[in-house]
Amino acid sequence: MNAIIAGPAFDGDERGDERLSTIIVAGQRPLAGCSWGMSLPDALGWGAMEPNTPASSNSTIPADHPGVSELFAVLAYGEISAFYRLSEDAQMARTLEGKVALASMAAAEMGHFEMLEHALTARGFDIYEAMDPFVRALDNYHASTTPSTWLEALVKAYVGDGIAADFYREIGHSLPAEAAGTVEEVLSQTGHSEFVVHEVQRAIAASNRDKDRLMLWGRRLLGEAITQAQFVLAQREALTDLVISASGDLNGVVALFDRMQKMHAERMAVLGLV
Amino acid sequence: MNAIIAGPAFDGDERGDERLSTIIVAGQRPLAGCSWGMSLPDALGWGAMEPNTPASSNSTIPADHPGVSELFAVLAYGEISAFYRLSEDAQMARTLEGKVALASMAAAEMGHFEMLEHALTARGFDIYEAMDPFVRALDNYHASTTPSTWLEALVKAYVGDGIAADFYREIGHSLPAEAAGTVEEVLSQTGHSEFVVHEVQRAIAASNRDKDRLMLWGRRLLGEAITQAQFVLAQREALTDLVISASGDLNGVVALFDRMQKMHAERMAVLGLV
Repeated sequence: MNAIIAGPAFDGDERGDERLSTIIVAGQRPLAGCSWGMSLPDALGWGAMEPNTPASSNSTIPADHPGVSELFAVLAYGEISAFYRLSEDAQMARTLEGKVALASMAAAEMGHFEMLEHALTARGFDIYEAMDPFVRALDNYHASTTPSTWLEALVKAYVGDGIAADFYREIGHSLPAEAAGTVEEVLSQTGHSEFVVHEVQRAIAASNRDKDRLMLWGRRLLGEAITQAQFVLAQREALTDLVISASGDLNGVVALFDRMQKMHAERMAVLGLV
Repeated sequence: MNAIIAGPAFDGDERGDERLSTIIVAGQRPLAGCSWGMSLPDALGWGAMEPNTPASSNSTIPADHPGVSELFAVLAYGEISAFYRLSEDAQMARTLEGKVALASMAAAEMGHFEMLEHALTARGFDIYEAMDPFVRALDNYHASTTPSTWLEALVKAYVGDGIAADFYREIGHSLPAEAAGTVEEVLSQTGHSEFVVHEVQRAIAASNRDKDRLMLWGRRLLGEAITQAQFVLAQREALTDLVISASGDLNGVVALFDRMQKMHAERMAVLGLV
């Protein structure tokens, strides 16, 4: 069961039409050299790798694993880029309340950034140098998912943030205690979303057309997020090793992406996008 | 000594060339119907008013003075508008570190906004309705002081925020304990400015031309801030009454604006703009 993008891994999935294979096609720019039919391990050149023994419930990952700092760095740049997308998207708000809601979400991102800056400094890293390798993938994600309407901006703020948080939380659980604590703390304060849920639910109750558009938009957000995650993993060996170690083995990585897909579907359902 | 904009009140001031009369001329759009030669009390139609007895050190202002909620509301909209100006100005940053510095300052504004939202809600006000009367003046301030360079953005972030904080802190000291505490708390967290000081000092050490431009820019920021403060005070009776009560009398208001001018000069000096 090495296929994550297409293949038999999802044959038993009851949400056949929500398969990652389908969702990813909604994305726009496939990773250069990576066809849509290729599995994630193949795309990453892991075809011949043997699965490791799954990690025990107590972390088997050493505290100084170089992937931990890379995880903090990609999280940190994610916060900065989300801050600027949210504050720019807020210009589309139809009310001052809407502008405030997105500004509050953006401000929370900066609080998380500062925690990560402390954590990276404590590990002896300069945060700006550490973030540099991740700028391109995250900027690409935002450039390829620039909302064209206020409702798209709201769904992106809620769903996009959620996809990233799921991924980091899944990895975070398997990290050594201190690093796990940092990840948990960074992810714990993503509130301010009641406004988004309320606005989206109200809009789609009034318009099936909006609902259809936003359902497609949600798929595209997931597809683009996974495309860029692949890009990052293909480039950063230490981070990739951390993700595999945290997941136990390659099957664990596949299961992780599968859980992310399920959590995404649940989030879409909260917005009424089912 | 009723003149704040021009006149003998500043004759004894050792910084003759830094007079408000001079500074205000650097502003762009005088308040309609208010000539530059007019005193603030005259502009507000207070010419015939008798000074009150100054307030004692224990506040004589009732906790339910309607001006307190207006003060919270103008502070709150100030935070929102500063958030959006800072995050937009950050696009001019030449480095990621610069973008982060302005984003952190913007995020701090939202923390203050949330405190004010709680305070206004506790007083039975809807913050969006309460802010509405102040939108125009604050939007005008930002529209007339849109930075055209990264250095202007930095000076505005530091100096503009400082002018507003001085004003609110001066009024805050005279408020009843609970309201004074809210104002103090809102103003206490304006940090993140070391980056600005360092960047501006470095730039002006390298260029006299930049220094000259930024000195004029600082004057213009003060002039525009006072123009818009006049506009607000001329429109909001309860807030004006609060400012006079907090200052003791009209002479106290004049002294307050004089102290603001001195604090502005000190802040400019910290940046090396003397």
